[in-house]
Amino acid sequence: MAVIAAWHEVAARLIDTAMGRQPADTVVRNCRWVNVHSGEVITGTDIAIAAGRFAFVGASAAHAIGPNTAIVEADGRYAMPGLCDAHMHVESGMVTVGEFVRAVLPRGTTSMFIDPHEIANVLGLDGVRMMHDDAMLQPANVFVQMPSCVPSAPGLEHAGATISADDVAQAMQWPGIIGLGEVMNFPAVAHADPGMLAEISATAARGRTIGGHYAAPVDELMFHGYAASGAADDHEGTKIEDAIARVRQGMAAMLRLGSAWYDVASQIKAVTEMGLDSRKFILCTDDCHAGTLVHDGHMDRVVRHAIAQGLPPVTAIQMATVNAAAHFGLERDIGSIAPGRRADLILTSDLPTLPIEMVLAGGDVYAENGRLTKDWAHFPYPATARQTMNIGALPDAGKFAIRAPKQPGPVVARVIGVVENQAPTRALSCPVPVTDGIVDAAEFHPTAEVPDLAQIALVERHGATGTVQNGLVSGFGYNRRCAVASTVAHDSHHLIVVGTDRQDMASAVAHLDKIGGGAVVVSEGTVLADVPLPIAGLMSDQPAAVVAGQAQALIEAMAACGCAMNNAFMQHSLLALVVIPELRLSDLGLVDVRAFETTPLFVT
Amino acid sequence: MAVIAAWHEVAARLIDTAMGRQPADTVVRNCRWVNVHSGEVITGTDIAIAAGRFAFVGASAAHAIGPNTAIVEADGRYAMPGLCDAHMHVESGMVTVGEFVRAVLPRGTTSMFIDPHEIANVLGLDGVRMMHDDAMLQPANVFVQMPSCVPSAPGLEHAGATISADDVAQAMQWPGIIGLGEVMNFPAVAHADPGMLAEISATAARGRTIGGHYAAPVDELMFHGYAASGAADDHEGTKIEDAIARVRQGMAAMLRLGSAWYDVASQIKAVTEMGLDSRKFILCTDDCHAGTLVHDGHMDRVVRHAIAQGLPPVTAIQMATVNAAAHFGLERDIGSIAPGRRADLILTSDLPTLPIEMVLAGGDVYAENGRLTKDWAHFPYPATARQTMNIGALPDAGKFAIRAPKQPGPVVARVIGVVENQAPTRALSCPVPVTDGIVDAAEFHPTAEVPDLAQIALVERHGATGTVQNGLVSGFGYNRRCAVASTVAHDSHHLIVVGTDRQDMASAVAHLDKIGGGAVVVSEGTVLADVPLPIAGLMSDQPAAVVAGQAQALIEAMAACGCAMNNAFMQHSLLALVVIPELRLSDLGLVDVRAFETTPLFVT
Repeated sequence: MAVIAAWHEVAARLIDTAMGRQPADTVVRNCRWVNVHSGEVITGTDIAIAAGRFAFVGASAAHAIGPNTAIVEADGRYAMPGLCDAHMHVESGMVTVGEFVRAVLPRGTTSMFIDPHEIANVLGLDGVRMMHDDAMLQPANVFVQMPSCVPSAPGLEHAGATISADDVAQAMQWPGIIGLGEVMNFPAVAHADPGMLAEISATAARGRTIGGHYAAPVDELMFHGYAASGAADDHEGTKIEDAIARVRQGMAAMLRLGSAWYDVASQIKAVTEMGLDSRKFILCTDDCHAGTLVHDGHMDRVVRHAIAQGLPPVTAIQMATVNAAAHFGLERDIGSIAPGRRADLILTSDLPTLPIEMVLAGGDVYAENGRLTKDWAHFPYPATARQTMNIGALPDAGKFAIRAPKQPGPVVARVIGVVENQAPTRALSCPVPVTDGIVDAAEFHPTAEVPDLAQIALVERHGATGTVQNGLVSGFGYNRRCAVASTVAHDSHHLIVVGTDRQDMASAVAHLDKIGGGAVVVSEGTVLADVPLPIAGLMSDQPAAVVAGQAQALIEAMAACGCAMNNAFMQHSLLALVVIPELRLSDLGLVDVRAFETTPLFVT
Repeated sequence: MAVIAAWHEVAARLIDTAMGRQPADTVVRNCRWVNVHSGEVITGTDIAIAAGRFAFVGASAAHAIGPNTAIVEADGRYAMPGLCDAHMHVESGMVTVGEFVRAVLPRGTTSMFIDPHEIANVLGLDGVRMMHDDAMLQPANVFVQMPSCVPSAPGLEHAGATISADDVAQAMQWPGIIGLGEVMNFPAVAHADPGMLAEISATAARGRTIGGHYAAPVDELMFHGYAASGAADDHEGTKIEDAIARVRQGMAAMLRLGSAWYDVASQIKAVTEMGLDSRKFILCTDDCHAGTLVHDGHMDRVVRHAIAQGLPPVTAIQMATVNAAAHFGLERDIGSIAPGRRADLILTSDLPTLPIEMVLAGGDVYAENGRLTKDWAHFPYPATARQTMNIGALPDAGKFAIRAPKQPGPVVARVIGVVENQAPTRALSCPVPVTDGIVDAAEFHPTAEVPDLAQIALVERHGATGTVQNGLVSGFGYNRRCAVASTVAHDSHHLIVVGTDRQDMASAVAHLDKIGGGAVVVSEGTVLADVPLPIAGLMSDQPAAVVAGQAQALIEAMAACGCAMNNAFMQHSLLALVVIPELRLSDLGLVDVRAFETTPLFVT
């Protein structure tokens, strides 16, 4: 986050400006002050800014205007605090922190609480540090939540790195670390796992906020065990009772509207219909693709959506500003237009439709009418970040041959069933065709239960172990010879390739190895589309608009291969996520997430 | 405050209790849960407590009950969080911290934010440390705000000690210090005085809260200068516009109902009538006499009063619990009934009338039906605290003789005019009788402007300088030979004696010297009543009920001498308070507070 001197370091300057003894750097004249403290909108307000912070907010700042003071004429428009995304993963945008900020600052996002969980699975603490250092260069306030669960499912997978309580304690001393990232291993927490509690303790001992992630029903006792751990918020709620239960237990209910998360409309009824106190409700995105950022917006989109659900505009803005700031202990520093706070401000002429007409960050104008008006330095990601394809010898087509067991009668295999618009997969099984002792998906005949069949393989990419785990998947609908591969493969981020042709699968892997990671669609030996993600195999070094175009081309190429499923690439990238039921593929093999154990591919 | 292990230190125990793997220490069964997070009341709730903290709050805690679990049957009564007094001075009760807690814990106060400003004026940092160490022994949470303005008015008085920015920095490292006490010298702050800003900076650098005190109109520019300083709250507001202005500027509006402060009714209309967001409104007492505590209550009285003003009961309770906790960065530790928070809890059968039927602090039952059920250790105040009468040679009656200037015509003197129920005095003047060259108040004939006349003297008591400053005062109505003396003499706490007889004045001073400080009424050589305050000349070592009785006897003795004024003793004790207009008496002489300078007794 931008280096702005602490309030107490510039208090004299702020006081002098407020009193008219020193001119302001900038004065915003004649606005409607969206006051998130009082819940009011106050017309005819002037705002004086000095040293990157608000110095004076009142009826007239004429006394603070000097010959060099920049004047911004609000002409009666609303001045509201810059928006905060209280929990999000930059990597979901497949861009760097710097490019993410460049995409969302014109949308009014001036504060982000990012959990670099993905890069941590690839590069460990070093990766977190890179994101942290990138964050520190930004004119927006980018606070880093230290990832807590790396790997996500110890014993069921190997990631590229591990995060320990010692790592957490070390990171807590970095200037940009604001707390612990979502503690996803909620069963371990509810069972008082010493390792998880040590991470929580290392965070709490520094007075920092512990991010939560409880993805199970709130009427289970485990919810209460989780609430007793110290997790301070939770963004995994989807139903109204989820939000209510969390707030009652003294946790913040973070409601997300991401590219594929739609959890605001249902839960916000706790406020709009049940009348709960709104202060512990916070808006966030969790995960946004580059395309969403470029075409639909970021927190502006979430606030607009919340207002459309019937929330009073100022209440919705509170949920995206002061509520988040207070939650992280930053209410005196960000999240409102009031003396001493960082001068992060949006001018808009209408609250419900929320056109973001001007954005100030740290007192400087950074964007007008959706476009950046100012640029800043890029963080130089080190070579280690660009050398994360450690596959060893590239697998040839033969590596993807699945040898069927020799047995009388049909061979029955377990199949990962992808369900459109749902994160959980289904654990299917069906007889599979065998040609020359090898499973031959191309010869598969659809059934109601298993409408199509493709191969899936996980190619180990962190330790050059040469591991290739093969499996079967249904639901994508690929109907020509093709392969789709990605090094975005939550959460351990090996390489996942899905295909109908083993040679194309090998070609797709080789292509990603060549470009340093990313995503690719290959058909009959030809690359139809790719998204190069050279940084940790997760992030591009290009602007969001470029990445959004590449991602769109990728989706179109997948469609050309027969995949019409909504959010198909996300489904692809979640196939190794061994913490969400039912069936997944890790570097240890097929995982039955219901039982939390590996399971054989073939049903014996 | 009681030593309760931090949440993260006992997280495993809390989780195990919530999950039913370890029994709770205590279970409160079948209550109506006053939920200050959601703003709801939830019937049929059980509460499990372990390690002094809430472990589980839900429909049934049956799974957390073991053979040694204490059961509290709430029988459908309300369970609400223990009350917080967000700003107060223990010394106003003229009792020690320990006796104050013994008086208010049965009233439901389980957290206090105390500013030991008075003892700091007598004993400096050592005195603050004594109060801090007393606070650390209490079963209630007593957080100490480090006094910021000692002396209150540098240049206009000498106190018994001074507090510097270095002192503040040192105190910030003590475990019980929560922030900086009210920064009263608001003109200095608004003028960016380096000393004041250094104290603020030393506090803010440790992430602590800076208490405010702005006692001037909010439409003055100085208000904005003050708001820009970092002062985070203010309890000096009296009018609705005061509360509104503070909240808009991002400060907490602390509304006080003390023994003589009635600032809730007017300001709370900002919420009840104007509909402002209530979260930045906080209730406090500032100053309560022992009699108020004993007869009327403490924060229970304030909450009851706030509800009577039309505030919804849960909103009023929020203002005395979670709002205060959040303000001081303690929302995860106190102020609500939710997992992990300190188990401070009140059982009551009715919210508007708020009978305090049971009080738990740190998970233990401490009071039932207004009576303590448990006692604890007293803090041994050191000898230095009991040896603060350093007058040197005791003044005889002659020291109080006011020699009139030799001049033709009547001798006109300045007179401090005390106004009933108002803190400011009036700067009066009138011709005074002179006998043998000495002002003779006894011969004074009342006028409409000056209804009576008595002598006042300030006797220096900290440095044995022998200083006696004489003056004249009107308004008390003393009509017999008498003297009233007190070592409670805000803020520098020298000795103030008001009398109609110089011999009685000398006797009163001698009596206080003998008993180590306090207050006394002497008439014709006889002590009519006294309140011994041997600790710093400010606090008794007796229980509040005893002190309340002594104080009542003192007031009755004052009345017997002709003083029928409401709160006369408080008026007496404020006569040296050189920060409140118009005319006061300090050890440097008569002070015209309007001009912030000393002024001669006689008008020339």
